[in-house]
Amino acid sequence: MSKDIRTQSLTKPVTVAEYLFKRLHQIGIRSVHGLPGDFNLVALDYLPKAGLQWVGSVNELNAAYAADGYARTKGISALLTTFGVGELSAMNGVAGAYSEHVPIVHIVGCPSTISQRNGMFLHHTLGNGDFHVFANMGAQIACESAKLVKPTEIADQIDHAIRECWIRSLPVYIWLPTDMVEKKIEGQRLDTPIDFTEPKNDAAREDYVVDVVLKYLHAAKNPVILVDACAIRHRVLDEVRDLVKKTSLPVYVTPMGKGAVDETSPTYGGVYAGLGSHPDVAARVEGSDLVLSIGSMKSDFNTAGFSYRTSQLNTIDFHSNYCVVRYSEYPNVRMKGVLRKVVERVDLSTMSRGVPINGVVNEVTKNKDDSKAITQAYFWPRIGEYFQPGDFVVTETGTANFGIWESKFPSQVTGITQVLWGSIGWSVGAAQGVALGVKDMGKDNRTILFVGDGSFQLTCQEVSTMIRHNLRVTIFLIYNEGFTIERFIHGMEAEYNDIKKWKYTDVPATFGATDKEVKTFVVKTKDELEKLLLDKDFNERKGLQFVELWMPKDDAPRGLKITTEISAKNNARTEE
Amino acid sequence: MSKDIRTQSLTKPVTVAEYLFKRLHQIGIRSVHGLPGDFNLVALDYLPKAGLQWVGSVNELNAAYAADGYARTKGISALLTTFGVGELSAMNGVAGAYSEHVPIVHIVGCPSTISQRNGMFLHHTLGNGDFHVFANMGAQIACESAKLVKPTEIADQIDHAIRECWIRSLPVYIWLPTDMVEKKIEGQRLDTPIDFTEPKNDAAREDYVVDVVLKYLHAAKNPVILVDACAIRHRVLDEVRDLVKKTSLPVYVTPMGKGAVDETSPTYGGVYAGLGSHPDVAARVEGSDLVLSIGSMKSDFNTAGFSYRTSQLNTIDFHSNYCVVRYSEYPNVRMKGVLRKVVERVDLSTMSRGVPINGVVNEVTKNKDDSKAITQAYFWPRIGEYFQPGDFVVTETGTANFGIWESKFPSQVTGITQVLWGSIGWSVGAAQGVALGVKDMGKDNRTILFVGDGSFQLTCQEVSTMIRHNLRVTIFLIYNEGFTIERFIHGMEAEYNDIKKWKYTDVPATFGATDKEVKTFVVKTKDELEKLLLDKDFNERKGLQFVELWMPKDDAPRGLKITTEISAKNNARTEE
Repeated sequence: MSKDIRTQSLTKPVTVAEYLFKRLHQIGIRSVHGLPGDFNLVALDYLPKAGLQWVGSVNELNAAYAADGYARTKGISALLTTFGVGELSAMNGVAGAYSEHVPIVHIVGCPSTISQRNGMFLHHTLGNGDFHVFANMGAQIACESAKLVKPTEIADQIDHAIRECWIRSLPVYIWLPTDMVEKKIEGQRLDTPIDFTEPKNDAAREDYVVDVVLKYLHAAKNPVILVDACAIRHRVLDEVRDLVKKTSLPVYVTPMGKGAVDETSPTYGGVYAGLGSHPDVAARVEGSDLVLSIGSMKSDFNTAGFSYRTSQLNTIDFHSNYCVVRYSEYPNVRMKGVLRKVVERVDLSTMSRGVPINGVVNEVTKNKDDSKAITQAYFWPRIGEYFQPGDFVVTETGTANFGIWESKFPSQVTGITQVLWGSIGWSVGAAQGVALGVKDMGKDNRTILFVGDGSFQLTCQEVSTMIRHNLRVTIFLIYNEGFTIERFIHGMEAEYNDIKKWKYTDVPATFGATDKEVKTFVVKTKDELEKLLLDKDFNERKGLQFVELWMPKDDAPRGLKITTEISAKNNARTEE
Repeated sequence: MSKDIRTQSLTKPVTVAEYLFKRLHQIGIRSVHGLPGDFNLVALDYLPKAGLQWVGSVNELNAAYAADGYARTKGISALLTTFGVGELSAMNGVAGAYSEHVPIVHIVGCPSTISQRNGMFLHHTLGNGDFHVFANMGAQIACESAKLVKPTEIADQIDHAIRECWIRSLPVYIWLPTDMVEKKIEGQRLDTPIDFTEPKNDAAREDYVVDVVLKYLHAAKNPVILVDACAIRHRVLDEVRDLVKKTSLPVYVTPMGKGAVDETSPTYGGVYAGLGSHPDVAARVEGSDLVLSIGSMKSDFNTAGFSYRTSQLNTIDFHSNYCVVRYSEYPNVRMKGVLRKVVERVDLSTMSRGVPINGVVNEVTKNKDDSKAITQAYFWPRIGEYFQPGDFVVTETGTANFGIWESKFPSQVTGITQVLWGSIGWSVGAAQGVALGVKDMGKDNRTILFVGDGSFQLTCQEVSTMIRHNLRVTIFLIYNEGFTIERFIHGMEAEYNDIKKWKYTDVPATFGATDKEVKTFVVKTKDELEKLLLDKDFNERKGLQFVELWMPKDDAPRGLKITTEISAKNNARTEE
């Protein structure tokens, strides 16, 4: 088919790149993370035309982490890399998004279909003529792979992939050969947005499940609600909020669910993580005769080493695409519809609530010892008092994502952690993506990052991107000389858990920040910390702030100690 | 089988970790790159006992790049990562080693076989119970994958994998579950080294090929030798040297073969890369009636966009495991044996050599214009004069690995580039690995790195590892404001080829170098460059040196301009 004939048959011809990028814009994406490479350069020319900003990331792993953070903030994100070298560098970041149900549209610019067909011995290949090997790897960590090689199918492929990305809340992989970038396809489709509506449950099945749930709920003596990660990722927080509000039931979160519910609510009870929970939390959740478990992800680090002691006989599980009531399973019944009807139909007059709970406070005074040192036990409750409504709190794998259990959030705080995938260094990239997502929403909420010195070293140059985009991020770098989480698992004094000591507060300036663009602080004592946290400018400043926070090397939050002890035992288990 | 019975039946029981690490030591590895993770921590305890040093890398991608550089220097290397997060971060680096035939033993610490069998919902998993997904991905970029799950088979598996790694000169993947690390296996095997001898060709077949080669060689009027990457990787440089010495034939290298032959040899003719060659080089190679092509890898960037004009009718190809004489193919005839016999049997009295060649010089004066600016045309010949015998010269993808074509090396210089895989940022990691390899050989040769500012940003923290190990590296950071190679392909002024400006000379100090540990320089003019290159201390200093080298933003070496022009056309080709 000649170009003229094909193009003439199109009502509103647009290039593939325009089509793809306009779709990204329609679904709310405003910034695209990634790096240039010769197989994606021509595509990049089309970003501004679609109203998209190119982030200009420092490397692909950081770009993927940032895309993860952006999606957790703004709903969905895009990552654009180049064939082979770029996409493989991003792989750990995308795998993390897959693991944790974060929707990222990963676009890979690849060699032209002609070069592929001719088996050309190109750079960025393994030299074996196999052009599909990387896409095959990428398909393992994507819920949908679309290879855009036939112009007549491309619009369908793009729309389907983006819809899957959103509905399933997982990454998708889109393969864009250089010779397809400027092919013309039908642009009239763009007038109709991609259908992002939640698939409806079969009404009869849904009603059946709702009835069963209500039967147990009305009969229970002291039911509780337990909110986990997938409640956030699969977007049922409105339903959860309404359920809590209407029923006034005690509500708890898991570590991965932290931030999902308003912690100032009178019925908020705290973080439940088995043996890692505060004793009164464990007593109440484990003593409950009905746990409404919403979006659970019972991974080791989310349950303090599988130490939860709730019984399936007393549990109703609500999941993105199935529900389980005690041992009865209901596949293809999505929690969203069920939860909405439960809210509507629950009969408060026949429902018990058990004894009221005491509520949660930041236990600052209780954990303040006489030493000058900023202990983990002291820090996390204290920082809870520093948080403000609207904050985005990003915590790194390590002491931070266990310590944050001890911080009570004000209302409307978004907690962002990567407890399941647990890739060190993730949070620095993620925080950039979060702050950019906030900025792209036209807001200036604070993004506050807690990252250990060991983790920071892996991805430090993401600070450069924060500066480049003038983002509002406050970084608390926990200066405790190495990989503390690993020390608690194995090798407390081992050299392999040590790191090279850096001049951390020099990092922003080295990466190009002027004195106006960054403020740096070194905080070694409780008194210094107190002074900083009460400082008006520190609380209100818009740009980048970098705090080197000294904490003892051999100290860890309670939850981390418990979890790593169980983890170490698990690793050491042997059958002989 | 109880532990006692099993252990009693072993003559010299050793743990799996000891066995593996002693094997690594036996094959010449002294340092192991990687990062700690809870699934590899116990294994790490066994490194010192085997005489191995833990590098303590800053992140896994850099660790993989460094392992690549180490293997290119010391022959083979080891990389130790953790399940999922670690191994995936390393993937681009390992894929590069696969692409470029670099032998790396990649060991991945993974969850215990018991946890796997129980389908435990562990951190660093995709949460879908599939423990094999990452190993399956890793298998795509390894010539051998060994999952160590049965103690009775482990010693065999380790020995086989390491032998494949060496013989095939490709990465291998070893999967080490936590519960296997301390299992006891037979240590007596360690008394017998792994057999690394080159597999012998069938003698009759080999003799047949040698006869054919000699027939053409004796009949040729002006034969030339062309040496490429696989001559280095598959270890036939002794054979090549002896062939050149005995025959006095003109010898050329490809970009990926640069450094493979002594460039001070009177018959060394220069770099052949099709249209990217100097005209006299192209004329001689393309005018030859017999090209002895040794270890060729005819990728786009190694041939200035496939612009070579040699005829297969005039070519004999020597490869690691096959030979091709004109169009006759000889599978399973390895070049090493053939080349050795050709050297032994060539009849110099009947062999022609054509007219003698002029030899190669660094064309410094010819390329010196009146401007102050350090142009690419001027720099590379000038730096050729700075090199010393024994130097290891690492060049990054971008202007450096094209520019280096214009530098003549003294004898015994090792050139290290990644022309085929071409992953930006590789060279910073690789240079660390090279310098550590040099140190581990008990030497203090200079490692000299040329890297663009864009590429440097991806992997900058590897400078920290250089400092940590007090390595002798001189870094020339080409300060030309962004991705110049991409600009020449597409988007000369495009924002996506720009980068954030850093204070590059502050990088070493920020990463912990004292004034004693690093010297930094900013060089903006030809005169300043001249002064620096003639400075005695700069030439002789043992530690880290960092030169910010200002070069014009829109300038590129001749070879890069030609190659990228062809590459851009190729990307833009369309069938309509």
